[in-house]
Amino acid sequence: MTKRKIVLAFSGGLDTSYALVDFREKGWDVVTANIDTGGLHSGEAEVVSARARELGAVEHHVVDARAELYDRVVTYAIKANYLRNGAYPSCVGAERLIQAEKVVEVALQVGADAVAHGSTGAGADHVRYDAVIRALAPHLEIITPVRDERLVREEEAEFLRSRGFAVSEKVKKYSINEGLIGTSIGGEETYGSWEYLPEDAWTYTKSIDAAPEQGVELLLTFHKGEVVAATTAGGDAVEGTGPGAPNYAILRALNVLGGEHGVGRGIHMGSTMVGNLARVGFEAPGMLILIAAHRELEKLVLSNRQQATKATLGNTYGDLLHEAVYFDPIMDDFRAFLDSSQNRVTGTVRVLLHKGNIVLLGSKSPHSLLDAATRQGVVYGHGSSAWTGEQARAFAHMYAMPGSIARVAGQPAE
Amino acid sequence: MTKRKIVLAFSGGLDTSYALVDFREKGWDVVTANIDTGGLHSGEAEVVSARARELGAVEHHVVDARAELYDRVVTYAIKANYLRNGAYPSCVGAERLIQAEKVVEVALQVGADAVAHGSTGAGADHVRYDAVIRALAPHLEIITPVRDERLVREEEAEFLRSRGFAVSEKVKKYSINEGLIGTSIGGEETYGSWEYLPEDAWTYTKSIDAAPEQGVELLLTFHKGEVVAATTAGGDAVEGTGPGAPNYAILRALNVLGGEHGVGRGIHMGSTMVGNLARVGFEAPGMLILIAAHRELEKLVLSNRQQATKATLGNTYGDLLHEAVYFDPIMDDFRAFLDSSQNRVTGTVRVLLHKGNIVLLGSKSPHSLLDAATRQGVVYGHGSSAWTGEQARAFAHMYAMPGSIARVAGQPAE
Amino acid sequence: MTKRKIVLAFSGGLDTSYALVDFREKGWDVVTANIDTGGLHSGEAEVVSARARELGAVEHHVVDARAELYDRVVTYAIKANYLRNGAYPSCVGAERLIQAEKVVEVALQVGADAVAHGSTGAGADHVRYDAVIRALAPHLEIITPVRDERLVREEEAEFLRSRGFAVSEKVKKYSINEGLIGTSIGGEETYGSWEYLPEDAWTYTKSIDAAPEQGVELLLTFHKGEVVAATTAGGDAVEGTGPGAPNYAILRALNVLGGEHGVGRGIHMGSTMVGNLARVGFEAPGMLILIAAHRELEKLVLSNRQQATKATLGNTYGDLLHEAVYFDPIMDDFRAFLDSSQNRVTGTVRVLLHKGNIVLLGSKSPHSLLDAATRQGVVYGHGSSAWTGEQARAFAHMYAMPGSIARVAGQPAE
Amino acid sequence: MTKRKIVLAFSGGLDTSYALVDFREKGWDVVTANIDTGGLHSGEAEVVSARARELGAVEHHVVDARAELYDRVVTYAIKANYLRNGAYPSCVGAERLIQAEKVVEVALQVGADAVAHGSTGAGADHVRYDAVIRALAPHLEIITPVRDERLVREEEAEFLRSRGFAVSEKVKKYSINEGLIGTSIGGEETYGSWEYLPEDAWTYTKSIDAAPEQGVELLLTFHKGEVVAATTAGGDAVEGTGPGAPNYAILRALNVLGGEHGVGRGIHMGSTMVGNLARVGFEAPGMLILIAAHRELEKLVLSNRQQATKATLGNTYGDLLHEAVYFDPIMDDFRAFLDSSQNRVTGTVRVLLHKGNIVLLGSKSPHSLLDAATRQGVVYGHGSSAWTGEQARAFAHMYAMPGSIARVAGQPAE
Repeated sequence: MTKRKIVLAFSGGLDTSYALVDFREKGWDVVTANIDTGGLHSGEAEVVSARARELGAVEHHVVDARAELYDRVVTYAIKANYLRNGAYPSCVGAERLIQAEKVVEVALQVGADAVAHGSTGAGADHVRYDAVIRALAPHLEIITPVRDERLVREEEAEFLRSRGFAVSEKVKKYSINEGLIGTSIGGEETYGSWEYLPEDAWTYTKSIDAAPEQGVELLLTFHKGEVVAATTAGGDAVEGTGPGAPNYAILRALNVLGGEHGVGRGIHMGSTMVGNLARVGFEAPGMLILIAAHRELEKLVLSNRQQATKATLGNTYGDLLHEAVYFDPIMDDFRAFLDSSQNRVTGTVRVLLHKGNIVLLGSKSPHSLLDAATRQGVVYGHGSSAWTGEQARAFAHMYAMPGSIARVAGQPAE
Repeated sequence: MTKRKIVLAFSGGLDTSYALVDFREKGWDVVTANIDTGGLHSGEAEVVSARARELGAVEHHVVDARAELYDRVVTYAIKANYLRNGAYPSCVGAERLIQAEKVVEVALQVGADAVAHGSTGAGADHVRYDAVIRALAPHLEIITPVRDERLVREEEAEFLRSRGFAVSEKVKKYSINEGLIGTSIGGEETYGSWEYLPEDAWTYTKSIDAAPEQGVELLLTFHKGEVVAATTAGGDAVEGTGPGAPNYAILRALNVLGGEHGVGRGIHMGSTMVGNLARVGFEAPGMLILIAAHRELEKLVLSNRQQATKATLGNTYGDLLHEAVYFDPIMDDFRAFLDSSQNRVTGTVRVLLHKGNIVLLGSKSPHSLLDAATRQGVVYGHGSSAWTGEQARAFAHMYAMPGSIARVAGQPAE
Repeated sequence: MTKRKIVLAFSGGLDTSYALVDFREKGWDVVTANIDTGGLHSGEAEVVSARARELGAVEHHVVDARAELYDRVVTYAIKANYLRNGAYPSCVGAERLIQAEKVVEVALQVGADAVAHGSTGAGADHVRYDAVIRALAPHLEIITPVRDERLVREEEAEFLRSRGFAVSEKVKKYSINEGLIGTSIGGEETYGSWEYLPEDAWTYTKSIDAAPEQGVELLLTFHKGEVVAATTAGGDAVEGTGPGAPNYAILRALNVLGGEHGVGRGIHMGSTMVGNLARVGFEAPGMLILIAAHRELEKLVLSNRQQATKATLGNTYGDLLHEAVYFDPIMDDFRAFLDSSQNRVTGTVRVLLHKGNIVLLGSKSPHSLLDAATRQGVVYGHGSSAWTGEQARAFAHMYAMPGSIARVAGQPAE
Repeated sequence: MTKRKIVLAFSGGLDTSYALVDFREKGWDVVTANIDTGGLHSGEAEVVSARARELGAVEHHVVDARAELYDRVVTYAIKANYLRNGAYPSCVGAERLIQAEKVVEVALQVGADAVAHGSTGAGADHVRYDAVIRALAPHLEIITPVRDERLVREEEAEFLRSRGFAVSEKVKKYSINEGLIGTSIGGEETYGSWEYLPEDAWTYTKSIDAAPEQGVELLLTFHKGEVVAATTAGGDAVEGTGPGAPNYAILRALNVLGGEHGVGRGIHMGSTMVGNLARVGFEAPGMLILIAAHRELEKLVLSNRQQATKATLGNTYGDLLHEAVYFDPIMDDFRAFLDSSQNRVTGTVRVLLHKGNIVLLGSKSPHSLLDAATRQGVVYGHGSSAWTGEQARAFAHMYAMPGSIARVAGQPAE
């Protein structure tokens, strides 16, 4: 009789290590899947793989999901200028959706009967995972020991040690989650709203004090809303970018360069899906730089109505994605709108990174509205050959009409 | 026979000096009105007044409109977190509306037949002035020599000199407009989109380089969305604020303190009412600090829906105000919404000003959603006693339902 | 030892009759509460009361919630012109919230330990009940036998008969829910999307065929958005309205009169909170007439921006209420907006009810924008003395500018 | 020396007849263009053509713009369910834009120096014409005698008679404008807000009284949001539709059939671009039927979020089009959104036309959300096998959390 097969989203941490052994003992064939969305340091994938085999996985899959995460999530976050609550380049939420998709792909590929993930029931990640699994593969059983059994770390460690597996003693002061989009940092200070994270809690960005006295100027070039080149003011490709680099290379390089100049730190405070407030530190220099530059270019080429409508739709799109509303067909409609809106978002932005600041120095585009107006004789602050004083006066006269009528209507005749 | 009377919005500059003498020669009794919306330096009001009398005004009125500007415009801009195009604490536009109102008040008071303002027809100020005048006092004739006659500076100067009036020789490299809300700066670099303003163009904010190595931490306290106290971390009132100070004292003090720390510079690029793009530098540390702090406090106390809806309505409100849509009754409705939304926006925000950065360190409020959740047993990142693992699992199951159904509907049975 | 006390929302139907006896046998003191939101016919309250006592309730409370339902829900639905999915004067949802509040009030008054309601887990009513109870009185246990135990009607009936209680044999073909706002009708035809309800399914509205050949003209007068008088074209108060009548008298009278003229039927199809689609017939002549007339008056007095913004906010407000988002503070903000928007919505509307049609014949108001424009010399279709041909031409010239610039920008120079 | 050439949008009416002769006498070569957007009755085109030649046009162009009007305007109005102010299938506005485009095309084709149209300066049509001409062909001079010279009908008639041209004596009581989308009717009653149009003012729709006692049931089939078939309940193609018919055939046929059943009359009241209110009668059965049916189908297949977002964006799109915001690139973005949203809007709707009513009997679609839910075990009103009572209860528990926390936060601890 064949054993039932389960695919476990596996990070190598305590929770999923426990789950692996526990499943095995309960009679499952356990296939582990380690999905890389940018959080794996060099050599880490091998460590996770070795741990999976040590603990008894029958198969271990490593899936590099970075290019897909960039293509399907990051590009739209930038097109939408999406920052959750106006500040946070929503990191973890979007990554979970892609991770869940990849776990389902592995499960379908190996013909699994069930999938398992190590999310707790306290946050929103378990909702994201389940939303994706249920929609893509409703026949798969979902098993979530940490959520269901509310396991305690000590018990998990004891369980593993009793089977002869080593368990690290070190207890981390901060809960860190790394990814391509950003790093999130939770700890004692973020459980309340009053304290800031101390210097040693941050992982790779420099403080304003430690950042170099001299800033760095960059040229970021976009084509239809997507960044295609990052160079120094002198025209040299930023390190790690250029021909042959993966689609996420510029984002990754700006994470490094921005962090070096003290750019990208913040504390996010926002509601979760169950109405309580979450507070969490983050480091995300690349996204903050790209969104700032992209938005500046949009000011040069988009109409006011496009910018205002994009702001509202883009926020809704980003919030829905964050809240795992992933299969509502409205998401396709939003992307169609965003794609269309980027037709003219082609050009270059001058950006200065300096002591924590992202300074937008200037921009240019073949679709520049400033240049188009100039070609028609309109120069702001300089008068205009496109209309006469009399025409301006008549325009003001007519423009004042609705307000004037509305005021009269508000004061009815006796 | 009595002469006809005209009220001239008078700044003492070349355009309005010319207009004053020209009107007088054309047979008007000219009443000058100098409306202070925060742009007058110490002693400047007296200089303007003397100039008005020298040039032959029959009366000169000085109106201090700062408290009213603060009360009617600034407080709502902060409640709305309004930054035009996400960046610019729209300065000049709102000031013009209040100035126009005050000019009309003077005109009604002195029984004038006409009002005059020195706006050109190239920008939006003339539209703002006319919109207010036509709605409040449609019987008043509007006379706008600069707009109608497209006067050239040299001709105006020659005209005045030929009547024996001194005219300053100095030609300013930058066109500067100061006010309570901020200072705007136009010049050669801002006529295009690529260049940044040079260091000597800025008027009172320090560069990042010149700002002190040591930042300053402030505590900003709000009551129902309005800032009521600004102190140091140690609790001392920020200089220029405290008991007896005018309602705009904190804004004014933060302009000084922020500017000292390199905070508040920017370049705004946005569409005008006639569809061309304007680019202009600005310095507005106070507004940027107050809006950042206010918004952080809102994150602590407002629901997600409130924040998202406020963002959209607040932007629309601010844009309409900028575009002189002042008498549409929707503006009252927006203010009613904004006022209601501020019922819980009471509390204190910790802010660090440092090398151009506004760092939001923390916040607290009696209406804190973080504390309210904690009182109900929900602690983010820590698990929750407000629900069980089974309940969390069931929630995820139900939450996934709509996406799951939508996906099935998207793939019709053969 | 005192017995524990439970308050049961009691309709006299099979589910809640079963629950009453079952609770009693399990040792509870059962207090029944019958909340009237307009669904009780004459004499019905007494029948329900007698049934409660027969089945062993220790106390029976009758709460007339109609005036409060009208004041707190109906007036805002009309101010918002809210029709769910553009068609349905959302009946049942809003009533449930008020009912739940009243049940909680009774529970607090009698010092109960628990509350019970007979909602199933298949629809949205159980979510509405629980949302209200948990927010207003989190200490109360919530007991919901029909939801939890998925009881079958036969078993409930047998249970009651075995205790000697009579149970009606008749099985209703349609599930009917009556209330002040409207009547909803579910049955075989509404489980799918293709069939229409047959003539005998409707409860009190006439068919188009059966409606009188001669329509009836009404004058509906509003004050700040609330209907204050309904008369015939001749000025006589519509039957059942006038001095001394309760606040909901006009709505109730229009239900009767509209139904007589074939007005008010429809089938609603809309998503529930769990993403599946519900389809249900309804009869709601009064709401449809009042909203149509109110909206017509708004066209006469509100600005375009007010109408457009109200449409979006009003829909959101109504949808959130339908979805039991009752305690989010945004609801107060929406009401503040709506109240402000009604400042000028005072006047009279001429309405013809005829063979299923609501024909809007005309309207008038002291705040009429049509009259205000006329007073300023603007008459649509007749030319205008408020501007000259030259001014009109100049306005068109300027108005065309943004589109013209945008088009140039879309076609960059080679 | 070649004469300068002007293209005149020519209807054959008094204004444009006068203009033609006047231009000729002023030395222009006048090319007339008669653009058919559905307002020409059989034989009328020939009459207009003959008149043009009689009055001395050097060339006369007839352009059939109906298919293009349908394709570029009507299909999107239906996709957007756009009714101006919730009632009016905005007729005239959209037609003017297409007419202006066609006039420009003729002008470019014949190498004209100028274009002329007969719009007055009192309404919005002149703004629409100028907006299109200035954007598409800024080099063309725009000449508008009726607007600029405020001509009086008597003078125009006298001018023509004095040159020997016959002028009709009949003065029409109502100003009628016919087109594919609808017919608008202005007259004495519509200048105020209180009176309704009398029976003889309507042009082709029957009154409720005169409509047949027996209604007619139709099946309207849509593919991706566009109507592709209209049949009787028995399956026969509605007269005038079917293979080989032009794209606007169903709309045209429903105008006839709807009008026969008393469907399609209304009075529109809405703001113009200059803030005054316009009131105008209309007959547009086809658009009202198609939008009602299309919207019903959307309820069956679109998510709630899609419907709500479409409602807001669709209204904005339609309003902007009405207001001649035609070249703002946001219009492309809106169309991209609308197109995407229609991916699943395929299916058939049952519609009854009866005594002025459009009754939506039922609908079906391969993308039906009702069917998709059923396939997953969810049946509204019937319980559900997709979740248990316990899961429903847990969902309600979690769903209540945010409101519960918000309420606690609103009542801070002492």
